[in-house]
Amino acid sequence: MEKEKNISFSNTGHFSLDEDIASTRNCENMIGVTQIPLGIAGPLAISSFSSTNQELRTKNYFIPLATTEGALVASVSRGCKAIGESGGADVEVEDVGATRGPVFRVGNMKEGRKLEDFLKNNFSQLQEVAAKTSRHIMLKTYAVSGAGTYRFVRFSFDTKDAMGLNMVTIATTALASYIYEAIHIPCVDISGNFCVDKKPSWLNFIQKRGKAVRAEVIMPASVVGDVLKTTPQKFYDAWLAKCMMGSAMSGSMGFNAQFANILAALFIATGQDPAHVAECSIGMTTTEITSNGDLYVSVHLPDLMVGTVGGGTGLATQKEALELLGVSGGDDGKNAVVLAGIIGAVILAGELSLLASLSQGSLACAHESLARGKVQKL
Amino acid sequence: MEKEKNISFSNTGHFSLDEDIASTRNCENMIGVTQIPLGIAGPLAISSFSSTNQELRTKNYFIPLATTEGALVASVSRGCKAIGESGGADVEVEDVGATRGPVFRVGNMKEGRKLEDFLKNNFSQLQEVAAKTSRHIMLKTYAVSGAGTYRFVRFSFDTKDAMGLNMVTIATTALASYIYEAIHIPCVDISGNFCVDKKPSWLNFIQKRGKAVRAEVIMPASVVGDVLKTTPQKFYDAWLAKCMMGSAMSGSMGFNAQFANILAALFIATGQDPAHVAECSIGMTTTEITSNGDLYVSVHLPDLMVGTVGGGTGLATQKEALELLGVSGGDDGKNAVVLAGIIGAVILAGELSLLASLSQGSLACAHESLARGKVQKL
Amino acid sequence: MEKEKNISFSNTGHFSLDEDIASTRNCENMIGVTQIPLGIAGPLAISSFSSTNQELRTKNYFIPLATTEGALVASVSRGCKAIGESGGADVEVEDVGATRGPVFRVGNMKEGRKLEDFLKNNFSQLQEVAAKTSRHIMLKTYAVSGAGTYRFVRFSFDTKDAMGLNMVTIATTALASYIYEAIHIPCVDISGNFCVDKKPSWLNFIQKRGKAVRAEVIMPASVVGDVLKTTPQKFYDAWLAKCMMGSAMSGSMGFNAQFANILAALFIATGQDPAHVAECSIGMTTTEITSNGDLYVSVHLPDLMVGTVGGGTGLATQKEALELLGVSGGDDGKNAVVLAGIIGAVILAGELSLLASLSQGSLACAHESLARGKVQKL
Amino acid sequence: MEKEKNISFSNTGHFSLDEDIASTRNCENMIGVTQIPLGIAGPLAISSFSSTNQELRTKNYFIPLATTEGALVASVSRGCKAIGESGGADVEVEDVGATRGPVFRVGNMKEGRKLEDFLKNNFSQLQEVAAKTSRHIMLKTYAVSGAGTYRFVRFSFDTKDAMGLNMVTIATTALASYIYEAIHIPCVDISGNFCVDKKPSWLNFIQKRGKAVRAEVIMPASVVGDVLKTTPQKFYDAWLAKCMMGSAMSGSMGFNAQFANILAALFIATGQDPAHVAECSIGMTTTEITSNGDLYVSVHLPDLMVGTVGGGTGLATQKEALELLGVSGGDDGKNAVVLAGIIGAVILAGELSLLASLSQGSLACAHESLARGKVQKL
Repeated sequence: MEKEKNISFSNTGHFSLDEDIASTRNCENMIGVTQIPLGIAGPLAISSFSSTNQELRTKNYFIPLATTEGALVASVSRGCKAIGESGGADVEVEDVGATRGPVFRVGNMKEGRKLEDFLKNNFSQLQEVAAKTSRHIMLKTYAVSGAGTYRFVRFSFDTKDAMGLNMVTIATTALASYIYEAIHIPCVDISGNFCVDKKPSWLNFIQKRGKAVRAEVIMPASVVGDVLKTTPQKFYDAWLAKCMMGSAMSGSMGFNAQFANILAALFIATGQDPAHVAECSIGMTTTEITSNGDLYVSVHLPDLMVGTVGGGTGLATQKEALELLGVSGGDDGKNAVVLAGIIGAVILAGELSLLASLSQGSLACAHESLARGKVQKL
Repeated sequence: MEKEKNISFSNTGHFSLDEDIASTRNCENMIGVTQIPLGIAGPLAISSFSSTNQELRTKNYFIPLATTEGALVASVSRGCKAIGESGGADVEVEDVGATRGPVFRVGNMKEGRKLEDFLKNNFSQLQEVAAKTSRHIMLKTYAVSGAGTYRFVRFSFDTKDAMGLNMVTIATTALASYIYEAIHIPCVDISGNFCVDKKPSWLNFIQKRGKAVRAEVIMPASVVGDVLKTTPQKFYDAWLAKCMMGSAMSGSMGFNAQFANILAALFIATGQDPAHVAECSIGMTTTEITSNGDLYVSVHLPDLMVGTVGGGTGLATQKEALELLGVSGGDDGKNAVVLAGIIGAVILAGELSLLASLSQGSLACAHESLARGKVQKL
Repeated sequence: MEKEKNISFSNTGHFSLDEDIASTRNCENMIGVTQIPLGIAGPLAISSFSSTNQELRTKNYFIPLATTEGALVASVSRGCKAIGESGGADVEVEDVGATRGPVFRVGNMKEGRKLEDFLKNNFSQLQEVAAKTSRHIMLKTYAVSGAGTYRFVRFSFDTKDAMGLNMVTIATTALASYIYEAIHIPCVDISGNFCVDKKPSWLNFIQKRGKAVRAEVIMPASVVGDVLKTTPQKFYDAWLAKCMMGSAMSGSMGFNAQFANILAALFIATGQDPAHVAECSIGMTTTEITSNGDLYVSVHLPDLMVGTVGGGTGLATQKEALELLGVSGGDDGKNAVVLAGIIGAVILAGELSLLASLSQGSLACAHESLARGKVQKL
Repeated sequence: MEKEKNISFSNTGHFSLDEDIASTRNCENMIGVTQIPLGIAGPLAISSFSSTNQELRTKNYFIPLATTEGALVASVSRGCKAIGESGGADVEVEDVGATRGPVFRVGNMKEGRKLEDFLKNNFSQLQEVAAKTSRHIMLKTYAVSGAGTYRFVRFSFDTKDAMGLNMVTIATTALASYIYEAIHIPCVDISGNFCVDKKPSWLNFIQKRGKAVRAEVIMPASVVGDVLKTTPQKFYDAWLAKCMMGSAMSGSMGFNAQFANILAALFIATGQDPAHVAECSIGMTTTEITSNGDLYVSVHLPDLMVGTVGGGTGLATQKEALELLGVSGGDDGKNAVVLAGIIGAVILAGELSLLASLSQGSLACAHESLARGKVQKL
């Protein structure tokens, strides 16, 4: 692998953390490291890659997954194989923006309108205030909501290749200060759970956050049989029963099979904040059987908070994982978009594999597995 | 620390993974490890510890947190200090059980009643079937729901000190097989998103899963001022605006400040499955000002899936973290209960610290911070 | 009032209501009546009728619908015809119970356990306390939940043929009083939105309230074509797109087409409380194409709060509607069960008709309709 | 029918409705009317009335409530009195627009982008297409979402004084036809539960629908005591426990006390569609104690679908109720806005009265009530 990708895994292979840097930037009172096994899945073929602004170059990717859960890497690899033999996945990334949702307190509705009017009439000034806090940030849009004397403002920022939460906190603090000086309406929480950060929410599902990613593939019935060991119909039935009926009956925001498993492994491997699994795992998988009997499968992730600079992305082993994907460091926002798209495609691979396993779980198989003391990992 | 706790950190301090074991049990196609900085917060004082069946011994804990997000360890330590100076936190753990929610397909409602009748009339046999799959598992209860021809059965198991998902999958496969042989009603997904595993759901919020944990503390106003640098009233206002109003306005299942941050760091450090952050981060923080002006704060986690044996808990660095907490390995279910309780108390510490920071975020402070190029981390 | 407002109430004043009775029991400061057109749909054939305790006699029903929305009666009648030509609908009613969810305040978690222990250890006494408030009420079960110092107790009662909210309020007040006297834990709201009364909630969706009703029918493809003017495949596609995909994407609790339309018309006609539409309209419609090409359709209403005595059921026109259905007055709980089952079947008829209309809405039809200045009512 | 069922319709048949009109426009197979007692609450004082475009004239209103639930009119009147003695309620109406959310099927993501591009590049043409279907309708905005091959387009229209659902259905049908002819992307449901019509949904809560209404009042502590028989603190405690804690714990979209009760009575009285209670009852009540000890209470209704022309508003008794409010018929959209604002203020009155009752429900009172055989109606 080192040779093929022209990357050195000198750090991943042994404890190599620059303790001085990590203990300053990433962790206080640091006593060492936790080690998570890192496996490689793939190759994963992306056949078209569309972002908000551009068509991106496509290629095959080897996928770094840090996990302690056996079978995950093998499961993703199987999904990658199915995608590859189907000609690759199509991926679409919308660069929505990192959001902060401070909460202001007004005296009454009339003062609430004053706040709304101020925001509307001073948007370019607000953009200037935000821009002064970092050369990598731009205020894109905002929205206001609220009840009683609470007014929640959801600021949305372009943060280039950074996931950007620290940047948007600083910018939002400056914005709240500017607003207070101008109209004396105080902010009582810089983060008012209207961001919504690291919590599952319908607001993020509906209005999206970070990157919104879709990935899809059409698999010939023969690939479904040969690689996934199931049929389009069985796959469809397993999907409908679990991802739609089950999630609806349980009041879930996750209409999918295992977004969280894949996200956690990718986030840890590539230095993302694993707490974001709480919000990023919402979303939907869809399937259908095409008119000629093939299987269409898609994933929709409305809320993917990822970056290729800042946070844990600079740590040695994490940086190597990003290099493996070709997206380490900043590139005017493009690296973060590509990372998001790759994640979407890996999520798709994970859904293919798990739903196929569930669908083929005939009771005969179950008997046999039990006899052998083995069982399909979920 | 090593001396004080009489534990050797020989593994955490350098790359030490037994690659043969890890690559067999935890990760396929393994090429090395991802290293996450590990910091120690605390000590954290628990003053009373009640579980479903027993009063547990209390003591002070040092808390291992694996994180790449600067300020998290310091933030938790501040919360621990506030708890300690208030006499410690009270903790309560309900041992709910690990659940699997397979989905069966019936021909019509009448056959659905046949399934319900069978489950009701054969519960002890079902318990025997489950017990045969492992000596560590016991079927506790079940519930049936569904619409149309879908019937979701939520089996709940005691899995002792294991988080237990693999065990319950094997047991549920055996149960589904037993049911099919008896009444010919097929299971179409062993996991029908009625578990609900690794997805935020109201079902888990309402009916709980794994361990349900509460922790609470009453902090004298002086401690709130000295340690948390805020006042009970400001803290209360910040909580109400963010955790209740903000979460309600955004359609969130997380009525809290930062459950996910703490869970992710603890889960990675102690070998839990970090994908469970998706479901475990739902829950609620409450506060009130007592009649004598002190500050009561509590956390409620209805869905905590953790264990001290199996999965990643056997890896070297993770095992050391569990040893630091005194809960490594199995102890007839008690270690997992204690771990859950400790997690509840750490979550409480995290809420104290972040809500205090938010509440004290006066605009004067914000100005100063901006001038210094620094800002409170959220 | 007429003079003051210079308005003639010539229509409102003209009515048949026994003003003495209505103004005493149903409405204060009564000036007359609002008149809602009452149409009759059907006949509706129910071919099997199962309740929790018994098989009920089946027959054909004429359905009273009070509505101001044109096309509703015709739409339901078309659904009834499709059901009739398919051999009738099967109906299943679970008599869950009317719930009240008072909220108690405890000093801390320990006192919370005291409350839970008291409820567990004194259940038969609680049943006696409740029974003393009415000879028509029985406390069936209870559940406790809560966070911080809030403890929500959800009492579930058998209220015979009454919807029963007033009865359960009186009983719950007596229970709260009994609890307070015994253990001095105060109730701060007799109704703590844990009932959950007249609000859509996942609690009611998951744990059910009042009557839980299912109805289903298998329609031969020929009936789908002749009566509903569509095909099983088109119907299925319209259902999946709207009731599952659309409702999931919009964060709805209503995975159905028009439960609310039918409920409102039936509730007004039969003297139910129309405010209950807020909660009763949650639920799910499912469809599938059977192996021989027929169309299976079902509805699931987990939360139907209805009765045949009390409230508006005693008013003259409403009583006549109940008599039309053969369920006026009390019959040891059986009339309310039958009413609930009929409602389920009418809801099914409404879903059939609207989903068929949506599915057949080819653009050619749309053109024609527009040309004629007409359009399918939704 | 009378003969067949052996029932006398002597009451139902006695009415004043113009049967020819009602049976043509409002109800098929009409056999008479259902009569609902109509009471008058108030007067209700509105002290300021702000809409999106203008300040509206304020005055006192008598409120028509059609209800079979005893105590409702008295309860609202008490709330009106408290508002009046506090100087009146302030009301704010945002004219959001009536929405329809058709669902289109695309072949893949690329075709989905084609749809999005078409909508963006042809918005003025779409406005023209919509405008041709009625002189009372204007397409204001749209939004697109979706997963897999489903694309949901939420069109938002200005429908003047009509609630407008039929108008927007016709306009959306024309739009779907136009889109299909231009780019051959078919609409599979004209209403794809992305409207979201007559179902509770987070989409409507977050993005609003129809009119979004807020109303607020500051009540001197003396008024709270004299009229509402409670204290600001008790009221606040009852609100927090029920509307925030209880609704959060039960997964409800209704953070309020009794929106649905008031809406149902007003909707029936004024000829609105009572099925809309399913969606309009979502929303939030807030309270706080001001620095000088008074009580601030507000209501927020994000989704109020009402009109003063069309539907049931033309029926004789309903029209009289609208005339009582001074908003019968069309007035370039202003009457519907005023009606929405009045409804907001009545909802506020209802919250005041019920929360006051709950908060004063001391156990002593409960005892007394039980002794007298009476109990506070909820």
